[in-house]
Amino acid sequence: MTDRPLIFVTNDDGIHAKGLRELVEVMQLFGDVVVIAPEVAMSGMSNAITADYPLRANKLSEESGITVYKCNGTPVDCVKLGFNHLLDRMPDFVVSGINHGANSSISVIYSGTMGAAIEGCLHGVPSIGFSLLDFTPDADFSKAKIYVARIFQAVMENGLPRFSCLNVNIPTGSPKGIKFCRQARGKWVEEFDKRTDPHNRNYFWLAGSFHNYEEEARDTDLYALERNYVSVVPVKVDMTCYDSLEELKNWKF
Amino acid sequence: MTDRPLIFVTNDDGIHAKGLRELVEVMQLFGDVVVIAPEVAMSGMSNAITADYPLRANKLSEESGITVYKCNGTPVDCVKLGFNHLLDRMPDFVVSGINHGANSSISVIYSGTMGAAIEGCLHGVPSIGFSLLDFTPDADFSKAKIYVARIFQAVMENGLPRFSCLNVNIPTGSPKGIKFCRQARGKWVEEFDKRTDPHNRNYFWLAGSFHNYEEEARDTDLYALERNYVSVVPVKVDMTCYDSLEELKNWKF
Repeated sequence: MTDRPLIFVTNDDGIHAKGLRELVEVMQLFGDVVVIAPEVAMSGMSNAITADYPLRANKLSEESGITVYKCNGTPVDCVKLGFNHLLDRMPDFVVSGINHGANSSISVIYSGTMGAAIEGCLHGVPSIGFSLLDFTPDADFSKAKIYVARIFQAVMENGLPRFSCLNVNIPTGSPKGIKFCRQARGKWVEEFDKRTDPHNRNYFWLAGSFHNYEEEARDTDLYALERNYVSVVPVKVDMTCYDSLEELKNWKF
Repeated sequence: MTDRPLIFVTNDDGIHAKGLRELVEVMQLFGDVVVIAPEVAMSGMSNAITADYPLRANKLSEESGITVYKCNGTPVDCVKLGFNHLLDRMPDFVVSGINHGANSSISVIYSGTMGAAIEGCLHGVPSIGFSLLDFTPDADFSKAKIYVARIFQAVMENGLPRFSCLNVNIPTGSPKGIKFCRQARGKWVEEFDKRTDPHNRNYFWLAGSFHNYEEEARDTDLYALERNYVSVVPVKVDMTCYDSLEELKNWKF
């Protein structure tokens, strides 16, 4: 037995991603680590769950306080399966990432990295999703890891409000510091690359660029990231639009 | 040319689902209909997007104001591909469903039905996800359709606040009326059925029951549904936890 915290590590880039190894390297400083990660890349899988085929998980290794499983499901499946079957006890923290690529602004709703963090906090476990603004497979996480450690330590000390998690995005290079922000309003535009196959049939690759609806707002994650700060957005699982709820109650049917 | 509104219909149960046909039947009363729906069932796909393989869409039919495409992607892919390539103009409304099964409370984050509605409103189009509390393939939608029509008509008349959509859940039987609600706090528990295959390897089926964290609260969707009312939750795409944002800014690093 140990009194070190139990830290659940997962991601959406899959078990072989560099960002996952880097995250484990930081987390083993703070506690015992269990990795349960998708066996293949699951980017853009959001909060998806798998009900149409059975899930499997295989233990790949167990040594010096680090246990590693791969799973054939989504990031959320990994968290659910871990909590319900693979772990001996509920973890003290869930950390997801380090994602290869940004999950700022509206990308929070598409992100498998954040899907896993959201799932963690839904079960009452303090959870954090970490993303680096570099989607290349061999991205340099060395500076990012310093911020991962600082933010994780702050969460250990302060805890997190129940049913909320953190969406942390880290710029490349040398960040200037950490800013707590709200999610910027934005959307992806021009989202497909249309091509024709050798049989003259059309197909479409998802692509696109990001449009920030509020470039001037200074309290958003995009504003912080563009100025080379690490952005931290507290995320909650209640999607109710309270601003309009009272007004809607006046509708006549 | 026509001045009837253009209504985009999709779902997550797939192009062959009864609930989709029933929704089209209601929508053709109000406008011209374009269906772009997943070619296979995509339940639980949340806001997932497809970046790892190319998307295809095939027009299946076009007659009397109803055009139908199937797509090999997720519900969100269907919306994005429709908006960006398949439609001649942006639709006036996006409606998703009628889902076979509930999407109340926290299920909003896992639901492909709601993923599509959320994607619609993100692009500024008034969007609604409809779900019936009966997951059977041959569910009886006859009473539900009356409420679908009433709620759609109210949205046509009143519009919706920008960047928000409606999550409508309809009880079986004869509902007593319509209640605007907030999303109940809850989670899925005991989520896997563990089995052993003929080769003595474990596998897991996602299953489980729902736990309502706040049974007594009278303003939630679950409360309304349990009392046989149609629940309507306005949903927004901003997941920022504003309640904790100011407090977090006091953290020292």
